[in-house]
Amino acid sequence: MGGDFAPQSQIDGAIEARAELPADVVIVLVGDEKIIRSKFEEKGASLDGFEIVATTEVIGMGEHPTRALRQKPNSSITVGVSLLKDGKLDCFASAGNSGAMMVGAMYSIRSIPGVIRPSITSILPKESGGDGLILDVGINADVKPDVLYQFAILGSLFAEHVMGIENPRVGLLNIGEEKEKGNLLTIATHRMMTDTTDFNFVGNIEGRDLFEDKCDVIVCDGFTGNVVLKEAEAFYKLIAKRGMLDDYFSRFNYELYGGTPILGVNGNVIIGHGISSPKAVKNMLKLSMEMVEADIPEKVKFAFRYK
Amino acid sequence: MGGDFAPQSQIDGAIEARAELPADVVIVLVGDEKIIRSKFEEKGASLDGFEIVATTEVIGMGEHPTRALRQKPNSSITVGVSLLKDGKLDCFASAGNSGAMMVGAMYSIRSIPGVIRPSITSILPKESGGDGLILDVGINADVKPDVLYQFAILGSLFAEHVMGIENPRVGLLNIGEEKEKGNLLTIATHRMMTDTTDFNFVGNIEGRDLFEDKCDVIVCDGFTGNVVLKEAEAFYKLIAKRGMLDDYFSRFNYELYGGTPILGVNGNVIIGHGISSPKAVKNMLKLSMEMVEADIPEKVKFAFRYK
Repeated sequence: MGGDFAPQSQIDGAIEARAELPADVVIVLVGDEKIIRSKFEEKGASLDGFEIVATTEVIGMGEHPTRALRQKPNSSITVGVSLLKDGKLDCFASAGNSGAMMVGAMYSIRSIPGVIRPSITSILPKESGGDGLILDVGINADVKPDVLYQFAILGSLFAEHVMGIENPRVGLLNIGEEKEKGNLLTIATHRMMTDTTDFNFVGNIEGRDLFEDKCDVIVCDGFTGNVVLKEAEAFYKLIAKRGMLDDYFSRFNYELYGGTPILGVNGNVIIGHGISSPKAVKNMLKLSMEMVEADIPEKVKFAFRYK
Repeated sequence: MGGDFAPQSQIDGAIEARAELPADVVIVLVGDEKIIRSKFEEKGASLDGFEIVATTEVIGMGEHPTRALRQKPNSSITVGVSLLKDGKLDCFASAGNSGAMMVGAMYSIRSIPGVIRPSITSILPKESGGDGLILDVGINADVKPDVLYQFAILGSLFAEHVMGIENPRVGLLNIGEEKEKGNLLTIATHRMMTDTTDFNFVGNIEGRDLFEDKCDVIVCDGFTGNVVLKEAEAFYKLIAKRGMLDDYFSRFNYELYGGTPILGVNGNVIIGHGISSPKAVKNMLKLSMEMVEADIPEKVKFAFRYK
């Protein structure tokens, strides 16, 4: 029920995903049963391979996350997160109120022991082909070096097991190439990352390198990452508006990636863009399946086990 | 003598600027006199309207600023800054070692009393026409709210008196529109800026708004500003490479703006891009004249007088 175009986008996207996902994958639709059934009927689509979990409440996009979760126990987000916690879902994805998704995940399935701060990510397509991952992109505006260090581990696991990049190279987003450049945070983080064996650290990268093949995982605080991401979106819009989308620039379309997992929590949770189109929802469901197959939470648990 | 293509770019640019600047403006060339004279001769250009101040040393682009300034008292940067201090120049501009320019300015002409941290700026062209100013873009990686507050004043003075924008609107670069969004720095800064009468604060702006007409002066810490600027440069390059530069995207070309003033110091100092072409040098000299005409240091002194 969440997202600017819910539930229409969600239902259309789920139907598209159904056609592409393996038959043994069940898509569980959490929401208003009457609306769901009537939308399927309208489209003449079959509910085979779907399950419906009926909910009666909706958390609006502008609602205060914690308050909304408490006051609406029967909202699709609250119910979805709780099904995930109870092991009745392998992954929960929503384009709804992202604060509520975040808080819901943190308070029910919780962080994996050892993980200081879970993180959300984004894809930055490289001009030379392939994708880069950047994290955090918005939920951790103030961080310390040890948190950035952990983001490198979380991002590396996602890059390796979901994106299929072997021994992913980690770059620290900074304002100079040399190790002594940066702000207090990045200078201290660089020192911490140097010579680590926990991931493949390749040094500082700069704003100018964001679309180059200098590394696979770009680590930064959530303030900088959010600004970087929104600036890239602004450029994408400027280019799209002019009809200049070539093969490369087209890859900046958020619809292709579906959403961001919350890395570092005890389950597979994916947050989609509020404006998610059916195509974005379809890709969010495909990413969900990849997350489940890769079993990222187990990999994170293992990585943080001795830390 | 400073810059990746010095002194050729510098001399070519100065000759171009000479043709466009008023006759009573004297361009002082600080550098190796023999080289300067021979380059002018090669081009068959006249030295009318120029003065030469002969120097014998050059600070390289990779040299340590403080050390280089101390060890090379007869470098073009050291001599230029000292001529400015002695009132023998109205403005000093260089595309050389920017750290040395910065340190030279700070230690000889110094900050204006009351200014906690001088700042460097960049232009972000707006799609709707006109330019936005962003500061700081790299020399203040760690700042406190009162420093951002001062950047708003410095940027407003430049926007008004050099860019010709009346009552410039100041936006705080942030990761959400609402006043409670952000990191510790921006939340505290927003509170400080709200209801100020020192400048025209219009609230938070996000990465997606950087090229929109939401404000005229964008204030941020130098870490974020540097990443924003370099990301924009990366996009400009990607677009230029594809031959997609239309009227709007062409305005991202750094050559058009010549360089950034150091705002908040006791004199007019302009730092150019290391890769400055003749066109960039020409525009740096034109900006120098505009800075002198606007008398920014005096305006800053007045603004900070009672603070």
